[in-house]
Amino acid sequence: MTGRYDKFSTLRQEGGISGFPRPSESKYDAFISGHSSTSISVACGIAKANTLDDKENNFTIAIIGDGAFTGGMAYEALNNAGRSGDNLIVVLNHNEMSISKNVGAFARYLSNIRLKKGYINLKQNVERVLDKLPLIGKPIKNAILDSKSTFKNIFLHDNFFEDLGFKYFGPINGHNIEDLVSVFLRAKEIKGPVFIQVETVKGKGYSHAEENPGAYHGISKFDVETGNPDVAAKDNFSSVFGNELTNLASEDSRICAVTAAMSDGTGLNAFKEKYPERFFDVGIAEAHAVTFCSALASKGKLPVFAVYSSFLQRAYDQLVHDTAIDNQHIVLGIDRAGVVGEDGETHQGLFDLAFLSTIPNTTIFAPTTFTELKVMLKRAIYDTEGIVAVRYPRGSEKLQLDQNEFSPSADYVYKKAGSDTLVVSYGRLFGDVYHANSKKHSVLKLNKLHTLPNEVITLAKEYKNIVFFEENLKTNGVAEKMFLQLAKEKFNGNFEIIALEEPFIMHAKSDSVLRKYGLDFESIQQKLNEY
Amino acid sequence: MTGRYDKFSTLRQEGGISGFPRPSESKYDAFISGHSSTSISVACGIAKANTLDDKENNFTIAIIGDGAFTGGMAYEALNNAGRSGDNLIVVLNHNEMSISKNVGAFARYLSNIRLKKGYINLKQNVERVLDKLPLIGKPIKNAILDSKSTFKNIFLHDNFFEDLGFKYFGPINGHNIEDLVSVFLRAKEIKGPVFIQVETVKGKGYSHAEENPGAYHGISKFDVETGNPDVAAKDNFSSVFGNELTNLASEDSRICAVTAAMSDGTGLNAFKEKYPERFFDVGIAEAHAVTFCSALASKGKLPVFAVYSSFLQRAYDQLVHDTAIDNQHIVLGIDRAGVVGEDGETHQGLFDLAFLSTIPNTTIFAPTTFTELKVMLKRAIYDTEGIVAVRYPRGSEKLQLDQNEFSPSADYVYKKAGSDTLVVSYGRLFGDVYHANSKKHSVLKLNKLHTLPNEVITLAKEYKNIVFFEENLKTNGVAEKMFLQLAKEKFNGNFEIIALEEPFIMHAKSDSVLRKYGLDFESIQQKLNEY
Repeated sequence: MTGRYDKFSTLRQEGGISGFPRPSESKYDAFISGHSSTSISVACGIAKANTLDDKENNFTIAIIGDGAFTGGMAYEALNNAGRSGDNLIVVLNHNEMSISKNVGAFARYLSNIRLKKGYINLKQNVERVLDKLPLIGKPIKNAILDSKSTFKNIFLHDNFFEDLGFKYFGPINGHNIEDLVSVFLRAKEIKGPVFIQVETVKGKGYSHAEENPGAYHGISKFDVETGNPDVAAKDNFSSVFGNELTNLASEDSRICAVTAAMSDGTGLNAFKEKYPERFFDVGIAEAHAVTFCSALASKGKLPVFAVYSSFLQRAYDQLVHDTAIDNQHIVLGIDRAGVVGEDGETHQGLFDLAFLSTIPNTTIFAPTTFTELKVMLKRAIYDTEGIVAVRYPRGSEKLQLDQNEFSPSADYVYKKAGSDTLVVSYGRLFGDVYHANSKKHSVLKLNKLHTLPNEVITLAKEYKNIVFFEENLKTNGVAEKMFLQLAKEKFNGNFEIIALEEPFIMHAKSDSVLRKYGLDFESIQQKLNEY
Repeated sequence: MTGRYDKFSTLRQEGGISGFPRPSESKYDAFISGHSSTSISVACGIAKANTLDDKENNFTIAIIGDGAFTGGMAYEALNNAGRSGDNLIVVLNHNEMSISKNVGAFARYLSNIRLKKGYINLKQNVERVLDKLPLIGKPIKNAILDSKSTFKNIFLHDNFFEDLGFKYFGPINGHNIEDLVSVFLRAKEIKGPVFIQVETVKGKGYSHAEENPGAYHGISKFDVETGNPDVAAKDNFSSVFGNELTNLASEDSRICAVTAAMSDGTGLNAFKEKYPERFFDVGIAEAHAVTFCSALASKGKLPVFAVYSSFLQRAYDQLVHDTAIDNQHIVLGIDRAGVVGEDGETHQGLFDLAFLSTIPNTTIFAPTTFTELKVMLKRAIYDTEGIVAVRYPRGSEKLQLDQNEFSPSADYVYKKAGSDTLVVSYGRLFGDVYHANSKKHSVLKLNKLHTLPNEVITLAKEYKNIVFFEENLKTNGVAEKMFLQLAKEKFNGNFEIIALEEPFIMHAKSDSVLRKYGLDFESIQQKLNEY
C-alpha cells in the first residue's frame, strides 16, 4: 500500500526500512511514531492545520490500539478532538492487547461494548431477504446498502465517545474489508469528529501468532512452519533482573514490581506469577507508574519500576516533582539502556543518563555482567536513598569478568598499570574495553555513574591521558561529566571520548552501530594502541 | 483542620507556610502536590500499600478538580484505580474551572451529568412530607435519612465512572456540609473504588472572587472591601510576550498560540480574543500540547506554546520523540523561568535549561528586557530551526539597558574593559550585573544560551578570571556548560559561578531568594570588587 513491498525483506535491518512509521522514509508515513498513544494528538494538529487552510475535503485519520489507550496522552488528545469540529476520524483497533494482554478498567469498558452489542453486521439482515428475490433483488439490495439508513443502527448513543462529542460507529469486524470500507465511506460524510471501534485479532491469519500474540509482537527471525524462533531464548539482562527481583521479593514482602505494559520485555513474568498481589502492570502509563511508585514508597514499600530507557522519558516531571522533592526512595530498572538495535531511532536508550543526571537525589548504577546486575539491584533497593536507577542493555552480557578482581559492590574498580594513560568505561562495553586493553594501561571501571565518586576524580587527574569509551551520546554523557569534574580540579591532560556522535541512530544490529562509532573490540584495541 | 490556623498570615511568605500541600510541613499533607492531576496516582499507591499491609479500615481519598481531569495522568490513574479493589475514594471537585474556565469535551461531559440530574438533594423529598407530620415526623425522618435506601437513587448507573468500575455518587452540592458528610459516610461503607462528583462554585462566599474566579486563583495582597489588588497590574514579561505574539499573528496567519490552561498566566488573552481560530487552550495537557504543536508544524504552521518552565517538564518525551527526531519547528515561550517567588519549590523554573539542553535540535534564548523578548520571539519564529525556546522570568524587567549598546538580535554582546576579569550573565539578572559592574570589568551578555556560540568561548578563554552570575541551579546550568567548553579549549584560569546552590527552593520573594545566593545588586557589586 505504501510502495515498500520490494523492500520488506530489509525490514529493521541496517540500511533497510524501519519497523516504525518514518516520514523521511515514505510520504505515506504522516508523522514519526515509535512511542505509544501519540496518534490522536498528531491527528488533532494535522486536522487543525487543514481546517485553518480551509481544506474542506481533507480527512485526518488517527489509528490507535486499545493498548495505547492506557496512555494519558490519548485522553488529553481525545478531550481536545471531541470538540474541535475538524474532520478527524479516530479508528480504535481493539484487540485486547498492547504488546501483552491489555489491562485496566478502560480495556474492560471497550470489551463490554463489544459484548453488549456484538459485531455490527451491515448487510446480513438486508441480504438475507433480498437474496431470495430473483431479478429485482440485486438492484434493490444495492440501493438499500448505499443508503445512509443502513447505518442508523450502528450508532451507539450514550457511550463515552459520543459523550465526548464524537459520532461513534462500531464495533466493526476489522477482518471484513467490505464492512470497513462501508463504514469509512460513511464516516467521511460526517462533519466533525468520528470514532470507529474496530475489532481485530492480533496475529490474525497465522496460527502461531494468534495463539501467542505477545511473543510475535516484534519477533526476530523464526521458522514459518513451526513458529519457532531461530535461536532459542537464553539468559539476558531482563530475565536476570526479573528473576533476581523475584528472589528478593521472596524474602521481603515490601518489594513491589511495577511495569508499564512490558512484563514480557522487562522479565517480570515470574514475579507476576509468584507475587500477583505485589505485581502491577499499569498499562502504557509511565507517568502514573512513577507517581504510583512514589506513593507506595511513602508508605514504606520498596517499589521497583522496570521500564525501557526510552519510555522513561515520559516520566521526567513525575521523577522531579513527585519523587525527588520529598526524596522518595524508588528503584528504576532501566532496560534497553544504550544502543537497542533493530528498534532504531525512536527506541534508543541514549537519553536516560542525560536527563536523570539533571534530577536531584538520583543515583545511577550500571552493571557489566549478570552478577553485577544482581548485586546492584540489591544495593539500589537496600543501601541507597532517593531515586536509584540500575541501567542495563538489551540482550546478554558480553565478555565475562572475574568478579573477584572486579567487586560488584564497589562504586568503581581501579587497576593500575605502568603507562601514563587511564582507560575508563562502564556497563556492557567495559568487558570489551578491559580485554582489548589487556593490562597495557591503567583501567577504571565505573559501577556508579552518578554521582561520580570523588576518589575517581582524584586518581584520574594524575594521568596524562584519559580515554573514555562510552555506549552513550558524547554530549551530556558520563565521560563529559567526568571531564567537567576533572577540569574543576585543574586537570590539564588529554581527555578523549569515544562515544556515539549522532543523537538519533537508525536501526541496525547493536554490534554494527558500536563498530560504526569505534566501540567494537577491534576499534577499541586499535585506539588503545595509539596510547 | 490541619493545625495551621495561627500561621495562616504567613502563607506563601518566606519562612511561612506553603501554598501547596507539603508533608514536611504537616502530617495532614499526605503527599507533595503542586503540579496538576497527580492525586489519583498518589492515592492508588497509598491505597495499595494499605491493602498490602492489610489495613482494612483504611480509606484513601483523592481530591481532584475537573481542571486537573484534562491531564492525562488522571486517566492513567483512573484506569488503574477502577479495577484495584482497594478502598479508594475519588472526590471530583467540579466547578468548571481550572485556573481559568475549564475546556474540552470531558468538561462538557461532567457538566451534562449535572444538567441531566440536577443536584441530588438527599433530604428534600423526605422532609417535605415528614415535616408536616407533628410528633412522629422527626423520629421517622431520622430513621429514613439514616438508612441506606436514601442513597439508592443517587447512584447514576451507565456513566463513565461506573463503567470503569467505580461506584458513582453525585452530583452533590459541595457547599452543603450535611449532604457531603452523609455521602462520605456512605462511601466508606462500600468496598472498592468510589467516585463522588461534588459541585462547587469557585470563590464561593466572596462576591469579588465568585465574579472573577480566575483572577483570584492565586492572588497577591488585595483590598478586601473593594476586591482590588494593592498594586495595579503593570507590564510584565508575560503580557509583553502575549501582545507581541498577537502583533506577529496579525501579519502572519500561520502563527498559532497554544496554552495548557494558562491563557491568563501566559498573557495570551489578547491573542485568544483576536484570533480565536488560531488559539488553542488544550487543558492541563502539556504532553499533548507539544505533539499537537509538532503536528501543526509538520503542516506548515508556526505554533508557539506558552508554558511555565516547571510544567514543561511534563513534555520531555514529546520534545524528544515527536519533535526533535524529525526536527519539527516549534517555539516554546517559557514563562516563570528562574526563581518564581511565592509559589515555591514545586513551581521553580530551574530545570528547563538542564533538560532542554539534553534534547537535540534545540535552541534557547533568554531576554533581559521587554524589547529583547520581542526581538527574540520573532527570531525564534522566523530565523531559527527546530525547537526554539525563549525563556523569561515571572514579573517585570529589572534595570533597563541601552539597546543601542546591547543589540537584542545578537547571540551575545561583549564589552571589553581593562581588567583581566570577564563578567558573564544573561536574562533578568544581567541588568543588575551590568550596572553593578559599572564598566570595571569586561562584560559578556549571553542572549543565546544554547548552544553557546563558539566566539564566546574564543573570547572568554583569554581571561584570567571569569565570574558567571546565573539565576539557575549551579549544576547543569549555562555557566557549567560554558566552563566545560572552555576546559575543552584548555582554559586554565579561574571560573567562579554564583548561582543557586540548592535544587529545591522554598517560597519567598524572588528578590530575597536571589539575595540569599548572592545574586542581588549589592552582593554582585561586592563580588565584583573582589576581582
